[in-house]
Amino acid sequence: MVAAYPECYERYESEARSYCRAFPFEISSAENATLCLSTGETFIDFLSAAGSLNYGHNDPDMKKALLQYIESNGVASSLDLHTSAKTSFIESLVSKIFAPRQLDYKIQFTGPTGANAVEAALKLARNVTGRSNVIAFTNGFHGVSLGALAATGNRDNRRGGGVELNGVTRLPYDGYLDGVDTLDLAERMLRDPSGGIDSPAAFIVETVQGEGGLNVASSNWLRRLRALATSLDALLIVDDIQAGCGRTGAFFSFEPSEIVPDIVVLAKSISGFGLPLSLVLMRPQYDVWRPGEHNGTFRGNNHAFVTGRVAIDKFWSGGQFASEIATRAQLIQTRLRALGAATGWVPLGRGMMQGLRCPSGLMAEEIRKRCIRNGLLLERCGPHDETLKLMPPLTIETSLLDDGLTRFSDAVLEVAA
Amino acid sequence: MVAAYPECYERYESEARSYCRAFPFEISSAENATLCLSTGETFIDFLSAAGSLNYGHNDPDMKKALLQYIESNGVASSLDLHTSAKTSFIESLVSKIFAPRQLDYKIQFTGPTGANAVEAALKLARNVTGRSNVIAFTNGFHGVSLGALAATGNRDNRRGGGVELNGVTRLPYDGYLDGVDTLDLAERMLRDPSGGIDSPAAFIVETVQGEGGLNVASSNWLRRLRALATSLDALLIVDDIQAGCGRTGAFFSFEPSEIVPDIVVLAKSISGFGLPLSLVLMRPQYDVWRPGEHNGTFRGNNHAFVTGRVAIDKFWSGGQFASEIATRAQLIQTRLRALGAATGWVPLGRGMMQGLRCPSGLMAEEIRKRCIRNGLLLERCGPHDETLKLMPPLTIETSLLDDGLTRFSDAVLEVAA
Amino acid sequence: MVAAYPECYERYESEARSYCRAFPFEISSAENATLCLSTGETFIDFLSAAGSLNYGHNDPDMKKALLQYIESNGVASSLDLHTSAKTSFIESLVSKIFAPRQLDYKIQFTGPTGANAVEAALKLARNVTGRSNVIAFTNGFHGVSLGALAATGNRDNRRGGGVELNGVTRLPYDGYLDGVDTLDLAERMLRDPSGGIDSPAAFIVETVQGEGGLNVASSNWLRRLRALATSLDALLIVDDIQAGCGRTGAFFSFEPSEIVPDIVVLAKSISGFGLPLSLVLMRPQYDVWRPGEHNGTFRGNNHAFVTGRVAIDKFWSGGQFASEIATRAQLIQTRLRALGAATGWVPLGRGMMQGLRCPSGLMAEEIRKRCIRNGLLLERCGPHDETLKLMPPLTIETSLLDDGLTRFSDAVLEVAA
Amino acid sequence: MVAAYPECYERYESEARSYCRAFPFEISSAENATLCLSTGETFIDFLSAAGSLNYGHNDPDMKKALLQYIESNGVASSLDLHTSAKTSFIESLVSKIFAPRQLDYKIQFTGPTGANAVEAALKLARNVTGRSNVIAFTNGFHGVSLGALAATGNRDNRRGGGVELNGVTRLPYDGYLDGVDTLDLAERMLRDPSGGIDSPAAFIVETVQGEGGLNVASSNWLRRLRALATSLDALLIVDDIQAGCGRTGAFFSFEPSEIVPDIVVLAKSISGFGLPLSLVLMRPQYDVWRPGEHNGTFRGNNHAFVTGRVAIDKFWSGGQFASEIATRAQLIQTRLRALGAATGWVPLGRGMMQGLRCPSGLMAEEIRKRCIRNGLLLERCGPHDETLKLMPPLTIETSLLDDGLTRFSDAVLEVAA
Repeated sequence: MVAAYPECYERYESEARSYCRAFPFEISSAENATLCLSTGETFIDFLSAAGSLNYGHNDPDMKKALLQYIESNGVASSLDLHTSAKTSFIESLVSKIFAPRQLDYKIQFTGPTGANAVEAALKLARNVTGRSNVIAFTNGFHGVSLGALAATGNRDNRRGGGVELNGVTRLPYDGYLDGVDTLDLAERMLRDPSGGIDSPAAFIVETVQGEGGLNVASSNWLRRLRALATSLDALLIVDDIQAGCGRTGAFFSFEPSEIVPDIVVLAKSISGFGLPLSLVLMRPQYDVWRPGEHNGTFRGNNHAFVTGRVAIDKFWSGGQFASEIATRAQLIQTRLRALGAATGWVPLGRGMMQGLRCPSGLMAEEIRKRCIRNGLLLERCGPHDETLKLMPPLTIETSLLDDGLTRFSDAVLEVAA
Repeated sequence: MVAAYPECYERYESEARSYCRAFPFEISSAENATLCLSTGETFIDFLSAAGSLNYGHNDPDMKKALLQYIESNGVASSLDLHTSAKTSFIESLVSKIFAPRQLDYKIQFTGPTGANAVEAALKLARNVTGRSNVIAFTNGFHGVSLGALAATGNRDNRRGGGVELNGVTRLPYDGYLDGVDTLDLAERMLRDPSGGIDSPAAFIVETVQGEGGLNVASSNWLRRLRALATSLDALLIVDDIQAGCGRTGAFFSFEPSEIVPDIVVLAKSISGFGLPLSLVLMRPQYDVWRPGEHNGTFRGNNHAFVTGRVAIDKFWSGGQFASEIATRAQLIQTRLRALGAATGWVPLGRGMMQGLRCPSGLMAEEIRKRCIRNGLLLERCGPHDETLKLMPPLTIETSLLDDGLTRFSDAVLEVAA
Repeated sequence: MVAAYPECYERYESEARSYCRAFPFEISSAENATLCLSTGETFIDFLSAAGSLNYGHNDPDMKKALLQYIESNGVASSLDLHTSAKTSFIESLVSKIFAPRQLDYKIQFTGPTGANAVEAALKLARNVTGRSNVIAFTNGFHGVSLGALAATGNRDNRRGGGVELNGVTRLPYDGYLDGVDTLDLAERMLRDPSGGIDSPAAFIVETVQGEGGLNVASSNWLRRLRALATSLDALLIVDDIQAGCGRTGAFFSFEPSEIVPDIVVLAKSISGFGLPLSLVLMRPQYDVWRPGEHNGTFRGNNHAFVTGRVAIDKFWSGGQFASEIATRAQLIQTRLRALGAATGWVPLGRGMMQGLRCPSGLMAEEIRKRCIRNGLLLERCGPHDETLKLMPPLTIETSLLDDGLTRFSDAVLEVAA
Repeated sequence: MVAAYPECYERYESEARSYCRAFPFEISSAENATLCLSTGETFIDFLSAAGSLNYGHNDPDMKKALLQYIESNGVASSLDLHTSAKTSFIESLVSKIFAPRQLDYKIQFTGPTGANAVEAALKLARNVTGRSNVIAFTNGFHGVSLGALAATGNRDNRRGGGVELNGVTRLPYDGYLDGVDTLDLAERMLRDPSGGIDSPAAFIVETVQGEGGLNVASSNWLRRLRALATSLDALLIVDDIQAGCGRTGAFFSFEPSEIVPDIVVLAKSISGFGLPLSLVLMRPQYDVWRPGEHNGTFRGNNHAFVTGRVAIDKFWSGGQFASEIATRAQLIQTRLRALGAATGWVPLGRGMMQGLRCPSGLMAEEIRKRCIRNGLLLERCGPHDETLKLMPPLTIETSLLDDGLTRFSDAVLEVAA
């Protein structure tokens, strides 16, 4: 297969570009889990635009609603003015997502990137508590604008900051070191008046670390973290950008642990269609923002509201979708466990956010390359890019899922051999 | 007129919301410079979504192209993978915008907000120079994520940061204090080994300060700033988020001064249609990014590429549009000067980014309210919200522009009386 | 006993004063381990001015040399100009301390406080490595000027900073949490590319934590720390301000572990007589200072050089003094162990830097008060001020040491009862 | 003349050493303004240990009192415990210095360096106001520990910091740029809600910039600065480390301007004898320190208290000394003006803190070298080391002052020729 794409990317696009380096093709269209290149070839999509396409490409119902909105001259850009699209989105979010879960969050529409929502969440926690220190965890990824970057563990991203990254203390995530109860350590250091960690405004945590290697925090650990935050008068922020919107099974990734975070950050798949949209959800008592304090132009992407509303109404009106995800997740897990047994490598993750930790980044890269040669797009994650991450659309057809898993298994077994 | 919008905003949207407080209506559709409420009423739009709708609402050509793209299952979200939509956008940008201006910029697609592009620009300048200090100017506004916020002058926004904002030195903008040559001062402090200002990585400047009160930097000042940056081995970053994309007349706001910035930041109207999109343009020798160093999910908003390409092709293929803008700008200036003469207040700005500085924020607010009662939407800016800012679409129909200016004049004269 | 001191302290001295609050008397003179009040009463001194009087008050040989120096118009203040007093001090330090231990340190004379020497050490490590992050440990105390304060764990001190304290990452000290190998954790986090701890310029460590509660780092832990620093291209700084100058037995506290730190910080007892003096010792290859880069007026306290030279010549010309310290330390340990057995409380520390951890700060305070009523001055340390610290002069007469220990034991047993 | 000093300095002392590089001799004794080398040669001292010997070397009355104190086993080191020496010092300071000037300051004894006192002053101002930003001025020098260094303008010193220096905004000093009223600019930027300078905790200023080039703030400027600070609820800190203790004529350098600073920092000559001692004076309402919040071992240098008390009693019991200083200052000024007239170079400074600005640092260095060859020790200051600074003891014999000025004049005229 030959890379078929215009030379303009190498000549004109910055060296910062990344995903395209491993997939040097031009995509012309896509439907659910199938990508179609300009050359006509197709790929099974186990990447889902890094989790921003949980409902696949061009869901017909969202597409229809969006076309209709545009046809009727619906407003595209509106700052945070009220629009009919926004009204409908809020109503669906509140009635279909919050109400059944007894959540009373208020919603902040930040600039439509996860990083911006994380920036807002950190600011809010700091303003609520009057403290500046935030606890983040090893292998956490929260974005690359300076405030979010301080909370991100990855050295390459951090180095790009160009200035010192302050205001964040790093502590080890659940299971980070064999035999160490990481919350015992956190609690000891945080309660010790000479522990040298300033009282935190917040803990920010992913329940499954999407970029950090598919490490999973146990429900028990999350419950203890929730309690620790409360006892320290600190806020608990769940960064559900990648693990939320059904990716791990429930709408929110923290539902199985039964905790209620003080702040939740959503992005990626919240628009349903891959359009930029981000939200910060906060318990009402913490909504201490003054008008316009965290502002910006693109707060309120109306096209995204249109598709996001359809996504909620279509997929989250009952429990059906969650059980479909569970079925698919089970299928993935079974295959990964078999691979684990065959190779001795570690299957990781939860829900439809699973993967396989290879012995090295090089091996993982070789597997990824073979997958691409076989028409399967997927990515790596983890500190050494050593973990292959399977993130098909939650809506992927079962046969295609099966097909993709087979292609993946073949590549793994070839390389492991 | 009664505010007609669902109660959901007050109950569910965060107190951070801002624009909607002064315009408590629900918009259902819009076309060029006309907003249509859910109640059927219409407004003349002199806000243009804070400058993100320079070509008006729902331009028919962009709309058509976008509908077609969606119909044909064009990819919505693609990270920074190559797509046919992106290829076309790059080609138009290079051939229609860069080439005729002899610019050889490389393009970085950051998260689709101005703030994110500013974050990337500041990082890049720091990494290129190995220095951390950045010079920003009084009344500058560059966004509210922590890196951008440090460069933003507004106290309310800064206060929201919740942590110390470092790495930026503030110097006075052109004309900040009568009788002070602000670049003489800057040069003296920066060249003095005991001046206490660390060698800068960059200067970041708006040629017209959109939020800061429509202050205009003279071409001469910009040329001296360009020379000063060069002589200090510092980069010159022009934040053209609001003043660019034709708002001040030429595509780039700095064209009249004939300077070539090292880095240019574009956002707001670059997608043409109001869809989130941001770019960092950099001289090729400064593209020191390592792959993925500044990453993110929504880098590459394909819908925005589709409309952005049409915007470039339609409006910037020749000099016609610039001369239309000049005509409209002249009309605005004439009316503002007349108001200035009548009231003694100061007309400000350049191109179609002009306004009137009132004696107080309260007076400006009263005028704004009267405009809204008369069907004209506009906003205030400046350190005390004392400057009324007229930012109609560049494409506004002449009669509607005239109508809007009359409504504005009436309100001003009533309040001034 | 009645507090007998002029009212001027309460009226005129800042509320920052501390030690005097627990010892509200006026001292008029002192000799070795005996303090004499203005009222004529005497106290046994188990405080030694927080370890700055290891050789007791007014050692006759130092006193004689100092009187002679002053009589002969020796220079008192000289910046860092050369003086005969400084020449002699350097020669003794090199020949009596460095040479027998095969150390080839270069010497920096900083402002004469431990904090200033720590500031210099941290700067140097950062300049040598080009990195800004420094690893400090739980319960460490390194001073309260901003650079040193960032490395200090104590919350009360940190809170006083008034700004964010950056550039330091805190990790748990040896034995901080039962069952956790703290260096395993440190190594894991530091080697993990997503561990979120930036590559360190240095580790700064006390071998015994004088303020932090007399916690002792094992020789094995120190050796592993030395190896870890080397493997990360980071410097190892031993803060020997309190534990050095013989306090733990050898001249340097790290001698038993056989490590060679890259930088050593000395202060407190280095002048021998209680006069302000501080040193930074550095391996020659790390002496990257440019002339005057870390400057100040009081670098070179000639009176302190005079007494410091005598201290070195008199006490450290052979192994005699170290063996005397060992004998006294043994005596202290025996008594503390007996108290530990009687009370169940934990004896802590090493050499003549030992103490007893009480169940609470209140109990420790009650014991301290009883000691003072019985003519024994001592202080508390530890995160909750719960540890009673016995720091008599190393030169204390055996009978007086025994007398002091008895008074201490009585107070402990009374309160424990 | 041959450099005569032991090789130990080059081999063993860090490259950070500075003053000795320009004066590579060993001093053996000194009396008032006369230095005596180990080789027997003598020098006239126009350096006064950078202003820490305002009363000359080994003043006989201080010497006598200190010898007596040591003879009688007075306490040398006492932390901040009460001692007879400290009591007397406080009483003299209050009765002889504060009372006649109607000042009601409280006194904080910090670590005995100017930098440490500055650190304490900045902390205090930040804690009083709850703000972190401090305004410092171009060419200001306040010390090199991190907190003080942030307020210091010198690039070489700042570069040594090794981390970002935050929390300080630099504004231009009085007369910094011809034709610019620097306080008008400061006021404009500070009052502007978009000025981008956060509300300050304090202004820190030297009335004469000792290291920065002998620039003098006018009384009018100081009074306006005092008023500006008050109106912004910010504290005014006068760093009187070099300009205080009579150096500019009155005990405090700010007396002629009749302002009352909120905080005053004293060091250098406050001990009278060149012994390390520093003070922070604060208006009582600002003494918000909690006990031990800013602590340290060497707070309370009793030897310095002994000599400092004599200095106050002897020199500041009446107005006699101030008038003697005025006479000598007049003599210096006359000679400098004559030199100015002869060379066209600018005489600078105030009181006995005057000097001559040469056209270049190289020329100043050549003059300094010739002075040293002619038995006169003096130093340079200013951003380019271009200003020769004459700082003889305030107590210098008139004939020796005259002799020194002649040697200086000869060197200047030779080099200017």
